[in-house]
Amino acid sequence: GWAKIDVGRPARTGTAEAVYAAGKTPEQVVGALKALREAHPGRVAVATRCDAACEAAVREAFGAEVLVEAGVCAVGEFPAPEAGPLAVVCAGTSDLPVAREAEITARANGIDARLTADVGVAGLHRLLDKLPELREAACVIVVAGMDGALPSVLAGLVAAPVVAVPTSVGYGAAFGGLAPLLTMLNSCSPGVTVVNIDNGFGAAMAAARILNVKAER
Amino acid sequence: GWAKIDVGRPARTGTAEAVYAAGKTPEQVVGALKALREAHPGRVAVATRCDAACEAAVREAFGAEVLVEAGVCAVGEFPAPEAGPLAVVCAGTSDLPVAREAEITARANGIDARLTADVGVAGLHRLLDKLPELREAACVIVVAGMDGALPSVLAGLVAAPVVAVPTSVGYGAAFGGLAPLLTMLNSCSPGVTVVNIDNGFGAAMAAARILNVKAER
Amino acid sequence: GWAKIDVGRPARTGTAEAVYAAGKTPEQVVGALKALREAHPGRVAVATRCDAACEAAVREAFGAEVLVEAGVCAVGEFPAPEAGPLAVVCAGTSDLPVAREAEITARANGIDARLTADVGVAGLHRLLDKLPELREAACVIVVAGMDGALPSVLAGLVAAPVVAVPTSVGYGAAFGGLAPLLTMLNSCSPGVTVVNIDNGFGAAMAAARILNVKAER
Amino acid sequence: GWAKIDVGRPARTGTAEAVYAAGKTPEQVVGALKALREAHPGRVAVATRCDAACEAAVREAFGAEVLVEAGVCAVGEFPAPEAGPLAVVCAGTSDLPVAREAEITARANGIDARLTADVGVAGLHRLLDKLPELREAACVIVVAGMDGALPSVLAGLVAAPVVAVPTSVGYGAAFGGLAPLLTMLNSCSPGVTVVNIDNGFGAAMAAARILNVKAER
Amino acid sequence: GWAKIDVGRPARTGTAEAVYAAGKTPEQVVGALKALREAHPGRVAVATRCDAACEAAVREAFGAEVLVEAGVCAVGEFPAPEAGPLAVVCAGTSDLPVAREAEITARANGIDARLTADVGVAGLHRLLDKLPELREAACVIVVAGMDGALPSVLAGLVAAPVVAVPTSVGYGAAFGGLAPLLTMLNSCSPGVTVVNIDNGFGAAMAAARILNVKAER
Amino acid sequence: GWAKIDVGRPARTGTAEAVYAAGKTPEQVVGALKALREAHPGRVAVATRCDAACEAAVREAFGAEVLVEAGVCAVGEFPAPEAGPLAVVCAGTSDLPVAREAEITARANGIDARLTADVGVAGLHRLLDKLPELREAACVIVVAGMDGALPSVLAGLVAAPVVAVPTSVGYGAAFGGLAPLLTMLNSCSPGVTVVNIDNGFGAAMAAARILNVKAER
Amino acid sequence: GWAKIDVGRPARTGTAEAVYAAGKTPEQVVGALKALREAHPGRVAVATRCDAACEAAVREAFGAEVLVEAGVCAVGEFPAPEAGPLAVVCAGTSDLPVAREAEITARANGIDARLTADVGVAGLHRLLDKLPELREAACVIVVAGMDGALPSVLAGLVAAPVVAVPTSVGYGAAFGGLAPLLTMLNSCSPGVTVVNIDNGFGAAMAAARILNVKAER
Amino acid sequence: GWAKIDVGRPARTGTAEAVYAAGKTPEQVVGALKALREAHPGRVAVATRCDAACEAAVREAFGAEVLVEAGVCAVGEFPAPEAGPLAVVCAGTSDLPVAREAEITARANGIDARLTADVGVAGLHRLLDKLPELREAACVIVVAGMDGALPSVLAGLVAAPVVAVPTSVGYGAAFGGLAPLLTMLNSCSPGVTVVNIDNGFGAAMAAARILNVKAER
Ligand SMILES: Nc1ncnc2c1ncn2[C@@H]1O[C@H](COP(=O)(O)O)[C@@H](O)[C@H]1O
Ligand SMILES: Nc1ncnc2c1ncn2[C@@H]1O[C@H](COP(=O)(O)O)[C@@H](O)[C@H]1O
Ligand SMILES: Nc1ncnc2c1ncn2[C@@H]1O[C@H](COP(=O)(O)O)[C@@H](O)[C@H]1O
Ligand SMILES: Nc1ncnc2c1ncn2[C@@H]1O[C@H](COP(=O)(O)O)[C@@H](O)[C@H]1O
Ligand SMILES: [Mg+2]
Ligand SMILES: [Mg+2]
Ligand SMILES: [Mg+2]
Ligand SMILES: [Mg+2]
Ligand SMILES: [Mg+2]
Ligand SMILES: [Mg+2]
Ligand SMILES: [Mg+2]
Ligand SMILES: [Mg+2]
Repeated sequence: GWAKIDVGRPARTGTAEAVYAAGKTPEQVVGALKALREAHPGRVAVATRCDAACEAAVREAFGAEVLVEAGVCAVGEFPAPEAGPLAVVCAGTSDLPVAREAEITARANGIDARLTADVGVAGLHRLLDKLPELREAACVIVVAGMDGALPSVLAGLVAAPVVAVPTSVGYGAAFGGLAPLLTMLNSCSPGVTVVNIDNGFGAAMAAARILNVKAER
Repeated sequence: GWAKIDVGRPARTGTAEAVYAAGKTPEQVVGALKALREAHPGRVAVATRCDAACEAAVREAFGAEVLVEAGVCAVGEFPAPEAGPLAVVCAGTSDLPVAREAEITARANGIDARLTADVGVAGLHRLLDKLPELREAACVIVVAGMDGALPSVLAGLVAAPVVAVPTSVGYGAAFGGLAPLLTMLNSCSPGVTVVNIDNGFGAAMAAARILNVKAER
Repeated sequence: GWAKIDVGRPARTGTAEAVYAAGKTPEQVVGALKALREAHPGRVAVATRCDAACEAAVREAFGAEVLVEAGVCAVGEFPAPEAGPLAVVCAGTSDLPVAREAEITARANGIDARLTADVGVAGLHRLLDKLPELREAACVIVVAGMDGALPSVLAGLVAAPVVAVPTSVGYGAAFGGLAPLLTMLNSCSPGVTVVNIDNGFGAAMAAARILNVKAER
Repeated sequence: GWAKIDVGRPARTGTAEAVYAAGKTPEQVVGALKALREAHPGRVAVATRCDAACEAAVREAFGAEVLVEAGVCAVGEFPAPEAGPLAVVCAGTSDLPVAREAEITARANGIDARLTADVGVAGLHRLLDKLPELREAACVIVVAGMDGALPSVLAGLVAAPVVAVPTSVGYGAAFGGLAPLLTMLNSCSPGVTVVNIDNGFGAAMAAARILNVKAER
Repeated sequence: GWAKIDVGRPARTGTAEAVYAAGKTPEQVVGALKALREAHPGRVAVATRCDAACEAAVREAFGAEVLVEAGVCAVGEFPAPEAGPLAVVCAGTSDLPVAREAEITARANGIDARLTADVGVAGLHRLLDKLPELREAACVIVVAGMDGALPSVLAGLVAAPVVAVPTSVGYGAAFGGLAPLLTMLNSCSPGVTVVNIDNGFGAAMAAARILNVKAER
Repeated sequence: GWAKIDVGRPARTGTAEAVYAAGKTPEQVVGALKALREAHPGRVAVATRCDAACEAAVREAFGAEVLVEAGVCAVGEFPAPEAGPLAVVCAGTSDLPVAREAEITARANGIDARLTADVGVAGLHRLLDKLPELREAACVIVVAGMDGALPSVLAGLVAAPVVAVPTSVGYGAAFGGLAPLLTMLNSCSPGVTVVNIDNGFGAAMAAARILNVKAER
Repeated sequence: GWAKIDVGRPARTGTAEAVYAAGKTPEQVVGALKALREAHPGRVAVATRCDAACEAAVREAFGAEVLVEAGVCAVGEFPAPEAGPLAVVCAGTSDLPVAREAEITARANGIDARLTADVGVAGLHRLLDKLPELREAACVIVVAGMDGALPSVLAGLVAAPVVAVPTSVGYGAAFGGLAPLLTMLNSCSPGVTVVNIDNGFGAAMAAARILNVKAER
Repeated sequence: GWAKIDVGRPARTGTAEAVYAAGKTPEQVVGALKALREAHPGRVAVATRCDAACEAAVREAFGAEVLVEAGVCAVGEFPAPEAGPLAVVCAGTSDLPVAREAEITARANGIDARLTADVGVAGLHRLLDKLPELREAACVIVVAGMDGALPSVLAGLVAAPVVAVPTSVGYGAAFGGLAPLLTMLNSCSPGVTVVNIDNGFGAAMAAARILNVKAER
């Protein structure tokens, strides 16, 4: 095959390579996951943005060993959490798949991730009610579509790093997630950082970098 | 001159024509204001988006009779408020000129407009502190640049109509006000309506339509 | 489930939460509608942007009690109108689904909504013929795709608040509704406010805020 | 010099080359105008989008023979009109410079051009009042900024060819003329054609093609 | 039904209303075509942008009387050409459906339309070979996707009015026709006018206006 | 004045409010800095995006106490570094002002910030030479314009959190920083987070959140 | 048929016309390939962007003589390589189809094309390992999606011409390939040239022009 | 200073680093040019996009040794041409500065560059007249603004590599060069490659890579 799995990545960056399944054949995805499992038997091998055919092939190849949800295939036993807690917060229930992608990726990397859903700013009390536990988090991932206002509000209320994930939830002038992306990049709460639209995976990897800092030095 | 001042507008739409000064010579603006004053001596004649040269010409033409601020020239005695209250709320102090454009235009149309500034969502308590008086308003104009998150939060807390005004305050990915414009169009709080970037004037005219409804029927 | 239905919204904002069905499973939509019905038995529970699978699930769950049209599922008996009249006007017959979303949502919230269709500006007499009855309305929602010119024309002829809804009707340089959205934001008729592309629901909620003002104070 | 003036253009296309002055030095513009005058002594030589320095140089070079307005320098005696009438209609007084560019270019090419200004759709009666004379025109150029709604309305009322010119008049979501450009491209009145933003020159050249058709065959 | 067919359009604008089928049900399209046929039995009734279901319904309703191609359904006997000739020129064979939409619409309106295909500028001799017959045309419609360069080249070689139609042929940075649209709006050949992407219908209607001028005055 | 300085921000978020000087008068900026100094005498008060007039006013008001560079005015004695090291890396020397904004803001917040400039990927050895010291950093801010490729390369080589700052350095298709912004959001190196174009301030605030995590828990 | 195959192209430009299959019927594609084979029996006839129906028709028409991969149908015996070597390099395995389109097109034109896959900058050693053989190439095509950073890095390390091909691999703010397109246009490594998104074909044709230069003069 | 001049670039890529003067102080530019002259005394040191202040500083520092034009400062004696010929072709005289940037950069790198100006496609004969000498060129750079149609036409007529440079010449829907950029990326003539808007420098560097291939292997 053409693939050159980057097996040295954990040594260089602290986290393993993951397979980006979109645009790959199921065989390519399964092959890449196998290569990752062989190189790092103690780590969970992860593929993201899998479609149904790809999920089926992975299930067939790895059986009970694989967790499949929200387009993620995670192969291998999940480690006990060794860093965190990481709060994964989402604005609406339609944002759940992206939040779950973040949560699963984080757990696969040994992070104690905790999901809080449906606390969008249209009903502010829902967020304020959760504030005590959100303030416990060492890092916060905030997932929101449409207006993308939640990270600005939450970042004004907590001291932890806030990684914002815009989603493609919405229609019309949401322009596939452009609206919340711009909102988050222009947050009036200083210190919010942003990843790509629908990129729950990337937010979790950023959290892994942030929390490893704490855990390992 | 080429201008055809629409002097029948109050009869048709309840509010007078205003002069859009950008792209006009000072003489054209003064001429249009005079025509408005003549047609409707009992109304304040308003020009918006005036530059310094235009403001000087209007001052010269109308003397003490003119109020000049935030690019607005308003000629004539302001009426006693007969509708409202209208809350004009802005997120940051840099949004003040747009908020003032709205406030002055509203007052010129007989509305009891009240300005609340610098209550952006990065420090939520500032907004919550003002909530009791904001809940008194029969209509709310919310002015915000950068992330434009304030209308979503406020519209979840009040029952009055909320007219949102995005501003060009910000830089980079604010794209001259595109970011807060999209935020507001995608508000997760239902019932928010939006006007053009920096269009304090238009928001006030919408409020005039809304409040006349209440006052006149 | 993950959802936190915002049952306090009527008390805070005068209108109930509605379910945004896109990106939710049929089960999630049915569950949310049930929660709304339980919290507010006297109100119609509304879900918008439902696909066929979702509509089927809602029909199965609520039977005769549900009205399904234009992607809206409305559960519960419609109240007698207590505010209005609200004119819902659309430019072409292709804009009808968005206009119907607005009309149904408005009726579900107790508004006397009346639909006028196919009065686009290409044949101006159609609009002028309807002017007497449009001038009766306490609020006007104008729905248009393509050039989106109708709100500018109509707002120059009536005194009521005008809420403009751009639609995704059109092709090419309509860019999914961007063209009429920009037209409406730049209306030369002052006082037009705008909601998201295809957002009939949001326009109705804005009308509810506007008309409640009148009705309740 | 580097320029290769296209002196064969009248023979091929019926109208002479014009000098696009932006990005050229005053010397280059004067040189090009001279070359045009020499090649076609019986035609008016035209340069568009001249700045003050360029206008001064042209005035110095050609003296009384030159007409300067709206960024146009036209050198030579204007011909008696031999085609038309061409109606040049603009929505607001701020659109006048673009309308004047069209009018002057048309007259320089022997067209009987007649300007009607400030008849935007916010006050529809102004347009309807002018309809009888507009219906006389063999071709109509419609110039509008902001919402750009005027061509759609007018094209529904006349049978002549309608050439629409969006202008950069407006701010915010007008995006430098993008808003009226999109409006005009999506006109619901069939048969509207569009030229570049602020391109009064191009509209006049299109009219020259259209009217020559009539005049010469 | 909701539709208000604009049966007075021929009297006002010289051409009949056409049905825009996208977003309408087959029943609505058939109904509108019937209304047009009844109002103007001597004219061909046209619907554009029909999908397969719509085409089937029209065929069923009107039988042999209907011509169906390129998404157009044209009902009624085509008139003998009374104006023209109109050259419809397209750059590549992938642009043919749009060119055919223009050609059929033109013929339905009594224009002698003649199609010249596959003469894109990459092989310039193909265009130059056709120049003699293209120069016969009283009006030229030029249809091109991708770079959209053909109208600029052709308009430099003919004196007739040139109506340019960008198409969505292409991929990537063609952005659904945006690339050729911008090319055509910025044509360095003066006098090119432009219609919406893929809008063969609109180009034909513009040609009808242009050629009627010649025919009727 | 209208301003409501958010003096509780350190308690809530760990870092003080900063003044966004753009769109404010020099008096407003000086006033806000004074309010911050009064509320938190032990902290450096910071204003960003100051123009020359604003810098002069701040210098006049605070004298020797103020550091002015890259549009930043920082008032008060800088604290001894208590967290870090933070590497601030920039691609070209034209990116230096943004990098300096980040560095100064970080130092004002007690971070040991170290600047590495002109290590863009066009000459990769410059970056590889610096790798040993960059790997020492607990957090890395990467500043780049034009292609914005540096964060992707560097994030593949270090394990620390990487905060990417696109700059407006470049021209043409850089579109004011849009090009590197998109590059960074689409980084193929997982875990890169992004802030607004030219937002060195925001990157430093994110670093403060990240490093406080480490320092304080 | 309407097609005018440009059979003189090899004589003019050194490479044969290829068929752009998108938007054409299978019959049109087969017909065009036949015409090319007849005109140039010694050349491979190529169609790009074929869908399954088109591929089937070509297979049926030409049998064993046709190579089908990555949407390319290439009819005729491939020539022995007479120019090169050309390195075709891609960043990720999802970019392979575009790289293969380039490779096949190049080979069909007599170029010794060699594919190197999955050497994206997130794992820089993979690229550096391949540098010796990449430095052998007389021309390099670099194919990358997402951040599109690879051409900048590679062009800083080799002296050969670098033709960059952005791909639509990615999601969200990749905007269908806009992100890597902008990256590549703004490369900080001088001398990178760019073709359309996913245009492996065009890159190969550029390489053919570049390498013919070397081979033939 | 902060700069790390990449003095190894000629060895790696065959051409020297050039100074990008925008966003640098005059001192920084002079310093960088000195460093380049010291490292490579036999090469011309080049800075691009210099403003007047920068040009003055360079003139002061290097005296007669410096050539200044079109924003380029080139220090050192120009070498005798050793590769080429390179045709630099531009569409209009307003495109000359960009063409000159390309020509000077090419000459500074030892290329026999020859400029042909004002041969835009609106007057096709001007280009056809020059075809014999353009066909002599080993490489062609085509510079065009507005519609950007010239590269498509020329690339269909020559076999040499064609590097297209869009310029910001134009207005309105030219969007600062976006229009010709998209035109060129979508060229229907295969093998056209594109550089950034106004990037004459980059085109020359690409030509240097292309022509070195020929000269050195
Ligand atoms: N350069 C900057 N970019 C983005 N946000 C900033 C910048 N400087 C200050 N801020 C934040 O923007 C807000 C300024 O709001 P105000 O000063 O009230 O208009 C403050 O909360 C700051 O934290
Ligand atoms: N393909 C088309 N593109 C643009 N406008 C069209 C097209 N087909 C028909 N129309 C016009 O669009 C209007 C359709 O409005 P309606 O059928 O009421 O939705 C009619 O006035 C037609 O003249
Ligand atoms: N006009 C230009 N357009 C694009 N890149 C340029 C230009 N002039 C110089 N460069 C390149 O941009 C880089 C400048 O980086 P620096 O001078 O370190 O900011 C150098 O490597 C040059 O090769
Ligand atoms: N305002 C204008 N807008 C668009 N094109 C113009 C304008 N003025 C002149 N032109 C055309 O642009 C071309 C200018 O090319 P050049 O003067 O050679 O740069 C001429 O062929 C003119 O016909
Ligand atoms: Mg919810
Ligand atoms: Mg503030
Ligand atoms: Mg209709
Ligand atoms: Mg007016
Ligand atoms: Mg062809
Ligand atoms: Mg450098
Ligand atoms: Mg890979
Ligand atoms: Mg010229």
